[in-house]
Amino acid sequence: MAQPDRAGRAAYEMFDRDTASKGLGIELLDAADGQATTRMRVTAEMVNGHGMTHGGCVFILADTAFACACNSHGPVTVAAGADISFLAATREGDVLTAYARERATRGRSGIYDVTVTCDGDVVAEFRGRSRQLPAERKP
Amino acid sequence: MAQPDRAGRAAYEMFDRDTASKGLGIELLDAADGQATTRMRVTAEMVNGHGMTHGGCVFILADTAFACACNSHGPVTVAAGADISFLAATREGDVLTAYARERATRGRSGIYDVTVTCDGDVVAEFRGRSRQLPAERKP
Amino acid sequence: MAQPDRAGRAAYEMFDRDTASKGLGIELLDAADGQATTRMRVTAEMVNGHGMTHGGCVFILADTAFACACNSHGPVTVAAGADISFLAATREGDVLTAYARERATRGRSGIYDVTVTCDGDVVAEFRGRSRQLPAERKP
Amino acid sequence: MAQPDRAGRAAYEMFDRDTASKGLGIELLDAADGQATTRMRVTAEMVNGHGMTHGGCVFILADTAFACACNSHGPVTVAAGADISFLAATREGDVLTAYARERATRGRSGIYDVTVTCDGDVVAEFRGRSRQLPAERKP
Repeated sequence: MAQPDRAGRAAYEMFDRDTASKGLGIELLDAADGQATTRMRVTAEMVNGHGMTHGGCVFILADTAFACACNSHGPVTVAAGADISFLAATREGDVLTAYARERATRGRSGIYDVTVTCDGDVVAEFRGRSRQLPAERKP
Repeated sequence: MAQPDRAGRAAYEMFDRDTASKGLGIELLDAADGQATTRMRVTAEMVNGHGMTHGGCVFILADTAFACACNSHGPVTVAAGADISFLAATREGDVLTAYARERATRGRSGIYDVTVTCDGDVVAEFRGRSRQLPAERKP
Repeated sequence: MAQPDRAGRAAYEMFDRDTASKGLGIELLDAADGQATTRMRVTAEMVNGHGMTHGGCVFILADTAFACACNSHGPVTVAAGADISFLAATREGDVLTAYARERATRGRSGIYDVTVTCDGDVVAEFRGRSRQLPAERKP
Repeated sequence: MAQPDRAGRAAYEMFDRDTASKGLGIELLDAADGQATTRMRVTAEMVNGHGMTHGGCVFILADTAFACACNSHGPVTVAAGADISFLAATREGDVLTAYARERATRGRSGIYDVTVTCDGDVVAEFRGRSRQLPAERKP
């Protein structure tokens, strides 16, 4: 759902084209000023061989929040890398929320923190490293 | 495709139940002795808002290789965390291969490295931190 | 300077025995309730081959703040690992301050964030992974 | 001890100016072709408040090996960040060796792995993220 008149317009437009996130049912709840919130319900299609939510699905939810936060400023910004710590397992039917906010920037580099929660409990902490592309380059 | 007679049987059995990986078309090419290889073709459903493969899909491919490598020893082992560095973008139609191998273990903790390549070029480097569960616990 | 009557006593006592930090002139400004602040003046002995503060000296300052924060609760807690991003170079004579605070804990594991600043600018972001030892074990 | 005639000359010259590493008694055993080895004896001055080698001292040893490996190619290269996992504690009198080698490079970015051992046992795994400076810039 694009919200073109508000801050974070670039993030909403990018999210509208994000087929991978849409396919998992990820919703973008908010994106502006270096912050973003995404939400996802864990489906049977997101379960790993231990019967828990696949860590990669938790990562995607966090990574999408990160991408929306760092693109909310306007210039095209990509992920250089990220670290995720898994603190608790979740399961089919759980609703996960990822809240991303900018921690620090220097030149074209940035650090973003994303906390993933389920029913108010922290289930993962993600830290993304972003890199803003030069104006003339497209990803 | 389970291969119950060979080394890495626990990894193959786990992968057979991994709905998330199967849904993305990830194949397990090999798993034994702390190593595993997975492969995935990037589809239109894996593209992000910049028109590139979603970083989270690259992560899932690597994370599944990591899970198969660290469970190839037998005892149930889960991811405590992971770091990924993205070195090059890929696109729809590209075939990505992730090769995971154990780097070091100490007690119930382990470090696994996963290299993701596309046409022989490294596109991402992943390092996973594993934790073997006590025998009596299930994830 | 131990402050045995206040919260964070275990952290102050640990810091008093921390020969490595003392040798670098690191001061513990505050430690209580999962938070701690350390400070260090960069000396000629901390410079690397590029004429900048050695990244390892920045790491030590942050790591000591992390250790004091995670031991401020009482139980003996050690570092399982850490990630540091260097955002700006500093030089001899600069005064660096590291502020650590707990981000999340689960069981005996914890995540702590440490921000290192110089004259109000962020020069490094550190994220530590802690592990509380079982009561009967000594490091 | 500079060895100006051999590969890795830039790394040896940089190490010769590395006051921080010299002050800790770190030796550069070898540096060439994206690889380097450093060695350090743990002294009473490197002990933390738990009576173990301070994690920051282990980090410095690894970081110096990383710096020598990534500068062995010639162009000035700095650390953008690093992750370290501590696998075993060491103590005063132990001799630690850090072996760094290039894992992957892309453009001006690189990934280097450093393994720290003590008596043949792995005590830490470090992964450094390097950034080569543009030719005209000095750090």
